[in-house]
Amino acid sequence: MKKQSFAVLGAGAVGGLYGAMLAKNGHDVHFLLRSDFEHVAANGFQIESRWGDFHLKQPNVYRNADELPACDVTLVGLKTVQNELLPEMLRSTMRDGGIALILQNGLGVEESLSEHFEPTKIFGGCCFLCSNKVGPGHIRHIDYGRIVFGPSHNTEGTLELAKEIESEFNAAGIEAQMSDDLSTVRWRKLMWNIPFNGLSVALDASTDRLIASEDSVTLIRDIITEVHHAGTHCGASIGEEWIEKTIDHTRTMVPYDSSMRLDYLAGRPMELDAILSNPLQAAKAAGIKMPKTEMLLQVLRFMQQSSRSRDGH
Amino acid sequence: MKKQSFAVLGAGAVGGLYGAMLAKNGHDVHFLLRSDFEHVAANGFQIESRWGDFHLKQPNVYRNADELPACDVTLVGLKTVQNELLPEMLRSTMRDGGIALILQNGLGVEESLSEHFEPTKIFGGCCFLCSNKVGPGHIRHIDYGRIVFGPSHNTEGTLELAKEIESEFNAAGIEAQMSDDLSTVRWRKLMWNIPFNGLSVALDASTDRLIASEDSVTLIRDIITEVHHAGTHCGASIGEEWIEKTIDHTRTMVPYDSSMRLDYLAGRPMELDAILSNPLQAAKAAGIKMPKTEMLLQVLRFMQQSSRSRDGH
Repeated sequence: MKKQSFAVLGAGAVGGLYGAMLAKNGHDVHFLLRSDFEHVAANGFQIESRWGDFHLKQPNVYRNADELPACDVTLVGLKTVQNELLPEMLRSTMRDGGIALILQNGLGVEESLSEHFEPTKIFGGCCFLCSNKVGPGHIRHIDYGRIVFGPSHNTEGTLELAKEIESEFNAAGIEAQMSDDLSTVRWRKLMWNIPFNGLSVALDASTDRLIASEDSVTLIRDIITEVHHAGTHCGASIGEEWIEKTIDHTRTMVPYDSSMRLDYLAGRPMELDAILSNPLQAAKAAGIKMPKTEMLLQVLRFMQQSSRSRDGH
Repeated sequence: MKKQSFAVLGAGAVGGLYGAMLAKNGHDVHFLLRSDFEHVAANGFQIESRWGDFHLKQPNVYRNADELPACDVTLVGLKTVQNELLPEMLRSTMRDGGIALILQNGLGVEESLSEHFEPTKIFGGCCFLCSNKVGPGHIRHIDYGRIVFGPSHNTEGTLELAKEIESEFNAAGIEAQMSDDLSTVRWRKLMWNIPFNGLSVALDASTDRLIASEDSVTLIRDIITEVHHAGTHCGASIGEEWIEKTIDHTRTMVPYDSSMRLDYLAGRPMELDAILSNPLQAAKAAGIKMPKTEMLLQVLRFMQQSSRSRDGH
């Protein structure tokens, strides 16, 4: 069987790591790059990973989505704040019937793409990993690493395809697990992302400091409980024990700056819509209030606005 | 009728202003000072006020509470974070049957003093003013200025005495208004203090910036609504229109750094118990949840702890 070909949109902490792992294992992988194009074209990818360090010397890199060949699977690792560009990019890489696997944070992206594409072509997944882009083409993957993913629309065909992708990921050394319940996967990730991404900015602290203080842990637990409650009413099946497990896993995690914190510190827009606003709207539609999550979004929006006006934007 | 004599504990933005106004009008006023003693003993008080600037040249100043004479009224303008010292100080200045008028922020101080003193001797009030101590003995009163105060225990005698104090304040040029409903006075002040003191620290912004952003105004309104709801269930009688009025008054206020923000920026402890924790406990006892107020306290406690560990305390 011919190995699947991959397009990778956004070769940062997620796309860079997984794309490079797949290329190393002999897959045909095509990377769309923006600011890092020159550097990666000249120097390749430098991957530091708990799965083993390596240097990917001559990746296939492109500046524009319409230069990429049509691929079997398009991995989307872009930040959601650029998602208005996504349908056009995907129309190019999916032109021969390939599928998209959305590895972005948050909620609502698969639904919004289903307006543009056959829903059976849209897959989504969550990456449970600590990984940062520390320089152009330079990825540092420091903890965890599992992808849990599945079709946005379960059919015999999409579930079969998910199984194939799962086994190709695993063959490439990527811990991957398919799921027939994408909503549960997304809400479980939100149970981490909402409190830890959000509070790392609101409280100006990395995970180790958030987890070391009784006051922040109480607040984290309150927010996780809200997310769990909302997810349950939005169709996710997550045992209540995941409230404490999510905290406990973070206790044993290496000190980590969340992507939202790095974005904020670098003056980039934060993924507030995907990670906070969309879940809040989904909860509201299900009749569920999330007051502390809502306050977190209000605080972060204020901070984002202040940071922009400070930078003169 | 002999003019009332006053002891003033804590000669900062509140005690310094009102004490100096009373002394200027011929009252016998005795100031307890700590760090500013030397400066004020040598230079007096410099008052810049919207009621008129003046220099109080030779105030009666003391280093220790037991050196002060017994006074008719002891004005308490200390920060609540030093309140463990208050009963002993008051035992000295109230020793001939005087009363205490607690001009501190927050909730619960009169109740805690009633364990140590005859409840009819304890009065409380709220100062609706923008005033800062800008240097030792140097007070800058920039906006508003009214004291609303009353007995913690209404009797014919305490209400009569409150009326006398009211007229002496007014004669001294201080806008003062007595009330027979101290609980309502305190909760109404909390409708400002909780959101504006708290968020000025949590969002690192003075009042003009808090009031300029739609996101922060929405959050402010949510928190004021919680405080109004809790106050109503704790016996305060505050019309619902005060939710918007509290915001509107702040719109026309001069840009102002709240006392909590000044404390935080200077590395001093914030008045979290009196302003946030005590109202939350009172609400809880009345069966009322205040999730955003609770989150604000959790955030501020984390920040206070972080700021202490940064300073090496």
